[in-house]
Amino acid sequence: MKLATFRAGSERRVGILSADGTILEPLALSVDAAVEGVAAVIGRDLAMLPRLSPVPISEVVLEAPFPRPRRNIFCVGKNYREHAREFTASGFDSSAAAGEVPKAPIVFSKVPETVIGPGVAVRIDPSVSAAVDYEAELSVVIGRGGRGIKAADAMAHVWGYTIVNDVTARDLQGRYSQWLIGKSQDGFCPMGPFAVTADAIDVADTNVRCWVNGELRQAANTVDLIFSIPIIIETIAAGVTLMPGDIIATGTPAGVGVGFKPPKYLRHGDVVAIEIDGIGRLENRFVEAAS
Amino acid sequence: MKLATFRAGSERRVGILSADGTILEPLALSVDAAVEGVAAVIGRDLAMLPRLSPVPISEVVLEAPFPRPRRNIFCVGKNYREHAREFTASGFDSSAAAGEVPKAPIVFSKVPETVIGPGVAVRIDPSVSAAVDYEAELSVVIGRGGRGIKAADAMAHVWGYTIVNDVTARDLQGRYSQWLIGKSQDGFCPMGPFAVTADAIDVADTNVRCWVNGELRQAANTVDLIFSIPIIIETIAAGVTLMPGDIIATGTPAGVGVGFKPPKYLRHGDVVAIEIDGIGRLENRFVEAAS
Repeated sequence: MKLATFRAGSERRVGILSADGTILEPLALSVDAAVEGVAAVIGRDLAMLPRLSPVPISEVVLEAPFPRPRRNIFCVGKNYREHAREFTASGFDSSAAAGEVPKAPIVFSKVPETVIGPGVAVRIDPSVSAAVDYEAELSVVIGRGGRGIKAADAMAHVWGYTIVNDVTARDLQGRYSQWLIGKSQDGFCPMGPFAVTADAIDVADTNVRCWVNGELRQAANTVDLIFSIPIIIETIAAGVTLMPGDIIATGTPAGVGVGFKPPKYLRHGDVVAIEIDGIGRLENRFVEAAS
Repeated sequence: MKLATFRAGSERRVGILSADGTILEPLALSVDAAVEGVAAVIGRDLAMLPRLSPVPISEVVLEAPFPRPRRNIFCVGKNYREHAREFTASGFDSSAAAGEVPKAPIVFSKVPETVIGPGVAVRIDPSVSAAVDYEAELSVVIGRGGRGIKAADAMAHVWGYTIVNDVTARDLQGRYSQWLIGKSQDGFCPMGPFAVTADAIDVADTNVRCWVNGELRQAANTVDLIFSIPIIIETIAAGVTLMPGDIIATGTPAGVGVGFKPPKYLRHGDVVAIEIDGIGRLENRFVEAAS
């Protein structure tokens, strides 16, 4: 099942997308609940929620499915082999000393307010960064929280998935050694357009692709993840209690801008489009605007 | 002015501490506001808030001043010269390649749910970490948010300060390269007991001390910070909009357990006490409990 958070007039709503992708059936949620977006339906039986009159998707503004995650987004770094190699070689990787391909998942975070919706412009601020880059990523949404979750049980804790662009300021990522600042610049987490329930895709075999201005830059399959989703969940939840609504971005494939020689950083007007099979297509324009 | 979040019966309250430290004057806040703790009074004129009947501090249970920060806590690593040297030498420092003393602030985060109150036991889970360590830290509380804040203006954005123990699983900090997991284990951020308004202390000249079972381990003055509070704020806020209630832990002095040969990690029953002049004394026992 595919869900969207959207704006109809002045109100935020959560709706279920029709099989042909043209109609949204809004769920009858309180205004307070709907503010959370799709997070409001985690733990609820979708079949039991009353629905309002369907609206054509062409008449609404789609927002990020999870417009404001409950805490920083968990992200995994260097989790595709070819990307691990290209990033290690870039000179911006403070973890390079640990080796080209990580022996354990590299987990960092992005602040929740980085999240923006599909179609919203990402600001490039040249006074802050001269090396803004894209990262197409499949993201896991936790449905049932827990601690000490074993890999064998991990998938039962997954509510579903969405797409994020883990936008990164490479210069800041290198300069500050820990990646929080380079990953948390305002607007650096385009998300959506849809969230899908766990049954909708086979995350062990899903294509992830990314284009910049129509040029294919990233194309991989989740079969190539170094650390699988169950292993990532087991690693974090060993001592950090996961919570419903937590989002975990699973890492990006090879083909990011910093991997090219010379690097292909994003410029004013560039459009980045990400497609993940079974979820949808996330597209955002990058716009230069000084402080 | 010193404030505390505390529990009186089943309700959470926020109160102002008397000059002699024996009486709390609870502020008249709604139940919903008081749940946020001291964060509920940020941006409000304390003199204008009605007060309820004073209660002796001996009759309440003190909680963390900010029981659940609005997003992950920002933390600065290796921000005292002697500590930067001891941690670089420890073998657990994934940023070691960048040099012994950092050239720019190292900023990472801890999840908000790590926060626990004074006197609450910190769990050591031997199935997860065999290297749990303490870090006494002065923490800044943001009062007025903003982006592009310059160092010269930064102090006007500070609401006040509190104490945190940035508890760290050294083995996980090293293993996962980025520090989020090692820093975010459940209960790994004892905080309090008080939050003080910005006028209460001179943060350019404040003593920070830490004892383990009564043995003095850390003793430094904030004059020794490599990156001052205004510089830290300028660095983060350059492109990450800061928000009221954001908490920034400014780094720990030399003398952490991993700095000793052999390391002195925390064990079952150890009591860590942290004092920061003008704020108070934060004390927590560490208790081993397997998963």
